[in-house]
Amino acid sequence: MRAVLLTGHGGLEKLEYREDVPTPEPAEGEVLIAVGAAGINNTDIWTREGAYGTEDDPAAASGWRRGNTMRFPRIQGADIVGRIVGAGGSVNESRIGERVIVDNALYDGGEERLLDSGLIGSDRDGGFAEYVAVPAENAHTIESHLSDAELATFPTAYVTSLRMLNRARVSAGETVLVTGASGGVGSGLVQFARLRGARVIALVGSGKEDQARTLGPESVIARDTSNLPAAVAKVAGGRPIDVVADVVGGDVFADLLNVLRPMGRYVSAGAIAGPMVRLDLRTLYLKQLELIGSTMGTHEEFASLVEHIASGKIKPLLARTYPLSDIRQAQRDFTHKTFFGKLVLIPNRSSGPSYAELRAD
Amino acid sequence: MRAVLLTGHGGLEKLEYREDVPTPEPAEGEVLIAVGAAGINNTDIWTREGAYGTEDDPAAASGWRRGNTMRFPRIQGADIVGRIVGAGGSVNESRIGERVIVDNALYDGGEERLLDSGLIGSDRDGGFAEYVAVPAENAHTIESHLSDAELATFPTAYVTSLRMLNRARVSAGETVLVTGASGGVGSGLVQFARLRGARVIALVGSGKEDQARTLGPESVIARDTSNLPAAVAKVAGGRPIDVVADVVGGDVFADLLNVLRPMGRYVSAGAIAGPMVRLDLRTLYLKQLELIGSTMGTHEEFASLVEHIASGKIKPLLARTYPLSDIRQAQRDFTHKTFFGKLVLIPNRSSGPSYAELRAD
Repeated sequence: MRAVLLTGHGGLEKLEYREDVPTPEPAEGEVLIAVGAAGINNTDIWTREGAYGTEDDPAAASGWRRGNTMRFPRIQGADIVGRIVGAGGSVNESRIGERVIVDNALYDGGEERLLDSGLIGSDRDGGFAEYVAVPAENAHTIESHLSDAELATFPTAYVTSLRMLNRARVSAGETVLVTGASGGVGSGLVQFARLRGARVIALVGSGKEDQARTLGPESVIARDTSNLPAAVAKVAGGRPIDVVADVVGGDVFADLLNVLRPMGRYVSAGAIAGPMVRLDLRTLYLKQLELIGSTMGTHEEFASLVEHIASGKIKPLLARTYPLSDIRQAQRDFTHKTFFGKLVLIPNRSSGPSYAELRAD
Repeated sequence: MRAVLLTGHGGLEKLEYREDVPTPEPAEGEVLIAVGAAGINNTDIWTREGAYGTEDDPAAASGWRRGNTMRFPRIQGADIVGRIVGAGGSVNESRIGERVIVDNALYDGGEERLLDSGLIGSDRDGGFAEYVAVPAENAHTIESHLSDAELATFPTAYVTSLRMLNRARVSAGETVLVTGASGGVGSGLVQFARLRGARVIALVGSGKEDQARTLGPESVIARDTSNLPAAVAKVAGGRPIDVVADVVGGDVFADLLNVLRPMGRYVSAGAIAGPMVRLDLRTLYLKQLELIGSTMGTHEEFASLVEHIASGKIKPLLARTYPLSDIRQAQRDFTHKTFFGKLVLIPNRSSGPSYAELRAD
């Protein structure tokens, strides 16, 4: 099959588009999916670069499991939408033909186990391919009028934003400052916080203000404003900031804590602008803040995401699609962050025999 | 009366022992207390030094209210034990004669208001004096066989530790790493965590291990151990670290997060070793940690502290007493941290007429 192999930690040259990759067989308990679309996420880039560091050495080359070595070659791609075309072992063959969206978290047990197991697209092969085999329970039936590419904008980003709001206990009437609001997770934060009845102040890169407004926040601020706390206070109009939901980190971090009300909550699930920040512990304890880490989403949160998608109340932000064979260009564009919404890869597919026909012999 | 005036932010020279300070009159709603003993806390030193910084300028000279200017001269002293000798206005005179321990938090409303109002000993005069007037509801009747000096070891430190454990939701069976366990707040953390049925690993300065053992932790580690995570893992014997309760901060901060289990909680109420720390946001979000700030204690938590003291289940750690006139030496000794437990000041008192006699004319 056609697929992109990640051959090691490094630059774009580590991504090899190939047409001779063996099509996976669904093992016991797995389904085989003909991939319709696969979204690109920061985690694809960071995993390729080995940018997660380790606890002992923040600059070490490491995948997201920090210190655990990844095995190569690996097919990345965490956000998978497609149709089930094969069922392994005891999986009911009636599932063949289902349109599915994939929960890429591989774990059993409680939410604290999210870090222990693995992720589809990182610890086992993912969706940057014509076909992918995944555990049957990770493939959720989806009913939606959206295209595969539109659906592929949601999984990782939106389950991450849903979990962030859950972890930070965001509720109706609260005011939430969302950073990176034009990005995948950020746009999810804005949409889900609005659905909860929270007021949203969206912080975005310069020039993306108008796009961010389409998501329905109460107000939008450009990140490079000279005095962020003053700008936030102005648009908040005297209301305290209850929660900051951040995926940016970096230089803006201290200001994000400064704008919070006493006993406010800061929640982070990423740090695009840089993960190493200076924290003034006096701000933490004198304001009695909570800094909450959140990663990916639980199986329960993914199920909730699927319901939200099916309800039609959240809208996909699809910036552009690329054929899978153009993955290097897609990731180059992704890194430049000049788009609004998600970039999605569409597998190159021959017009030859279908998978079912291939297997019929 | 005899009292110590803080005349401005600065060194020990800003503390002036005087014998000609006017005795305060209890205003409406206040009681006048003849101070029996007044404990010394970090906050006395930090407030004198103006060491709290501001959110905009971590190095700015500021009291604990960060950016609000204090008024001088000020009588410090947050931990007050004594007897009621006067009642202002509508306060029932039957309270005269009560032995009391003082809640130094001045606020109304919920716990988020802890920062809005003030503290006795900082925002109004405190206990480094023969007499102090405080709001009647801040003076709690105490029944105990302990001496005034022993009781004066508890208020600020122990209500702070009680609140830290509440904020971090420490419960029976959990394992808690306590830093600065030989200090005021730290010893409270160890004692209260044990009372809750938690297992405690106590981290102390070198040479204080044996003293810390008297508090009943499961194990004790010296802070200057070369590999803290390894030392913690060894004494934990495979049990995960659920909570870190920290008053130290500084260089050890990163290791304190590294030893926590996924979804573990870190709670801070101070940073003796330095408040400016480096935080790796990846550790926060990949491990899904909670970093919780806690400051002082609520009125409800102070009432709970008084019950704990009356129960006799927590023991006072009184290192030494000094006459109030020796406050500079006491604070010098306090800063060197060579003692175990609290330093407490005893007001110099003439053998002349009592306050009641003075007022009888």
